[in-house]
Formats: sequence, structure tokens, C-alpha cells
Amino acid sequence: MNCNTPTDVTFSFAGFAQRGGRTDHHADGWGIAFFEERGVRLFVDPTAASASPVADLIRRYPIQSKNVISHIRKATVGEVRLENCHPFVRELWGRYWVFAHNGDLKDYAPRLHGQFRPVGSTDSEQAFCWLMQELAKAHASVPPVEELTRTLAELVPQVARFGTFNFLLSNGEALWAHASTHLCYILRQHPFATAKLSDEDLSVNFAEHTTPNDRVALVATAPLTCDEVWTPFVPGELKVFVNGLTLS
Amino acid sequence: MNCNTPTDVTFSFAGFAQRGGRTDHHADGWGIAFFEERGVRLFVDPTAASASPVADLIRRYPIQSKNVISHIRKATVGEVRLENCHPFVRELWGRYWVFAHNGDLKDYAPRLHGQFRPVGSTDSEQAFCWLMQELAKAHASVPPVEELTRTLAELVPQVARFGTFNFLLSNGEALWAHASTHLCYILRQHPFATAKLSDEDLSVNFAEHTTPNDRVALVATAPLTCDEVWTPFVPGELKVFVNGLTLS
Repeated sequence: MNCNTPTDVTFSFAGFAQRGGRTDHHADGWGIAFFEERGVRLFVDPTAASASPVADLIRRYPIQSKNVISHIRKATVGEVRLENCHPFVRELWGRYWVFAHNGDLKDYAPRLHGQFRPVGSTDSEQAFCWLMQELAKAHASVPPVEELTRTLAELVPQVARFGTFNFLLSNGEALWAHASTHLCYILRQHPFATAKLSDEDLSVNFAEHTTPNDRVALVATAPLTCDEVWTPFVPGELKVFVNGLTLS
Repeated sequence: MNCNTPTDVTFSFAGFAQRGGRTDHHADGWGIAFFEERGVRLFVDPTAASASPVADLIRRYPIQSKNVISHIRKATVGEVRLENCHPFVRELWGRYWVFAHNGDLKDYAPRLHGQFRPVGSTDSEQAFCWLMQELAKAHASVPPVEELTRTLAELVPQVARFGTFNFLLSNGEALWAHASTHLCYILRQHPFATAKLSDEDLSVNFAEHTTPNDRVALVATAPLTCDEVWTPFVPGELKVFVNGLTLS
């Protein structure tokens, strides 16, 4: 989620968490990261999201954030352990960077000669460390969003050629999303309507919870609601979202 | 806490959290980090620990860990914001490092020319980034605990001369504790007895929850229990705890 007003994700998360073991088979851990200004709250848990006490807290505790990344894991590369749960967080240029990946990379062993090393054993964390290393080489300090997007557009295909590289990346200012295969998004804005979750019998009338100026972008592997129109990404597409709008 | 068997901190945390606004005036945020093997769960919250829904989860959810660092903040340098809550986490040599500081450093502006930059505005995070930068310069990869302790013993006085530098640092393998002023510790081992919290009317019989091989070291600014003997640190002392034992 990327938006222009701090918003809670309790509604979307209620459906999303069901995919971790109940309506889908991604039961090998989960995680969610919320930016609050420059700070990050990261919750990770190597249990199924549908049965996690921490996920239960997230469903009930409305944390307000403008950039949220959540992930439910089906282990392909790397054991089911806390250090292999997404999202991953690193600091670069005095900002936190949060990354989550869906898909897997075959025979991927990037040259990590810089300051970012994986702690766990996933291909995803390796890809994240490589992206961070290359961003650090390309810029001396945090550049404008447009410039970062151009650098990422050069870097991403170098990873994507190893397999499926659907990912979300945020520094609290923007949300970058890349699709190798499946990713879709929706931009919600005034006039807000109601929506019904695909994974749970729950509806919400956004008009009751928003002001006319609010803008919210949601990106997900599969649509989270069954009565809204989600736009699919074109394979290979990198999009960046700022203040609930898409820039590219 | 540092111990040889994954242990939960629900008992100690019940008392500790009361110091965040109820039995003490440290109400400007709090945090707790749990290592699980190489992974870390970090919970931070810019509200008073005694009233935080996240603290309530920690009190009730027994997360098993061998290395836990928790902190309750009274803001001296840096606003009350999420990014200023301790503990702070960084990755070095493919391991996470967790740091919390009590005290304040006057006119402290270390030269941060390396890969670690503060995200928030505290003197504490600057000191942590400087320590990480200097560790990265001193060793090419993660060295044995004894060697790290020697390096830290050289680095720490260079920070401590700027003020009060009571801190806890862990990489999941060992817990380093340094006292400029107040810090005390206790080593619990067989035969385990009962203990009563200083800050809440709660007792526990550790014999019921342990095996004869368990060893637990606890370090705190002030004793957490009122009926056990806590050993004070000598000002300037750096101690390292591994598997519930002190090595120095």
C-alpha cells in the first residue's frame, strides 16, 4: 500500500492473512512492514499468518502508515526460519529500505562485494542485497524518486533474467513494484465506494473512513477484493507509486 | 537477557514495561528485539510501554529467545518518534546487530564516513553507527566473540568520554553490556528459586519453568526483582555474556 494520508490496512490485511494457510498455500511464514515517517515497524513470524498471534494483533491494531509492504511466504529457496521471512530491511543513506519478493530465481549467486550481505538463505534476500549494493554505487546520497526509478529500471532486468522477480520495494517515500509474472494494482480515490474481500466475508464502505483528498494505491499478486477493477501489470513492468498515485 | 536455552521474557517484561510511564518516567517510546537463530523480531512503539497494545502482546505471547534486548526511552536528544526508539538494528557481515543505549552524549558528532548512517536524530543511533563502522573496519568478517570484545574494549571509551554510555549490544551469539554509570546483572542457574518483581506484584518459581542445565543472564539499569542479589557493574566496565555465563 502507498497513500497520501496515513491509513491503516486492517481491512486488506484481514483478507490477505487468510492466504497464509487458509485460502491459499503460502503457510511458511509472513511479515509486514509499516513506515511511520522515517521509522519502520517490522513484524515477521515464521508461522502461518492465518494462525499467528502477531497477525491477530495487526488485524486488530490500526497502525497508520503511508507505505506498507506485506508478504506471505511459500518456501522455495531457504528453510522456514525467521531470518528467511520477508520483508527484509536494510539502511542506506540514512533511510530504511523494505523489500519483499514473490517468485524464485534459479542459480542466482550475485557478486556481493559491498556492504550488504544476506543474513538468511533465500534468493530473495540476495537479490535485495545486490539491489542495495548497486544503488549505493550509483548514487552518493538519496536521489529524487524519478532518478531512483531510472536506476532501478536498469538494475531489475539483470536480476529478472534468473527467474520470477515480482517484488515490492519502499523507502517510506515511494513504493516500487515490479512484475515478472503476476501483479495487479488499484488506485482508490474520491468518490470512495464499498468493497468486499475475495478471501473473507467482509465488506467495507471506504467513504465512511476517508476524506475527499485521500488517495490509496494497493498492489497485490492477486486482487484482494472481488467487486473492484484491478489493473494487471504487464510482465517486465516496473511501476512507482507516490502519495497514492502512479508515476510511471 | 542472554541464555543457553531459548527462554521467554514474559515475567521480566511484565515488570520492565511498568517503568515505561507507570513506576518510572521513561514514557517516550520503547522497544524490544528477540533473536531467533540469525533472525530478529524487533518491536518498537513511540507510545508509553505501560499503555502499548504491542507491549501487551509481548507480555502475553511467550517468544522464545537466547538473546533479548529491550529499552524504555526517556527522550533527551531526538524527538519522540518511531525512528528514535531503541533498540536499533543493522546488518554487518551477514548478521544482525541490535543496540540500545541509556544515557546521553554531549556534543557528540562522530565522523560517519562508512556504510552506517543514522535514520533518526538520537545521539544513541550515531554512537551505534560509529561502533558498527569501526567494527567493519577492524575485521573482514565476523570474528570470534573474544576478539570482538577486545575491539569493543578499545572503541567504547572513545564514545564514553562524551557522556553516559550504558549500552547493550548483541549479534545473537553474545550480549555485550557496558556501564558508564548504572547497570547490574544476575546469573540464574540450578537450583532455581522464586523471584518477585520490583515493579509489579508478581512472583514466579523458576524451578517450575526450567531444567537443571538452563542458565540465564539478565542485565538491567536497576534490579528487576526485589528478592535476588544483583551485581552492580563497575563504572567503565564492559562485560560479555554467552550462553548465560559471563566471559569477562
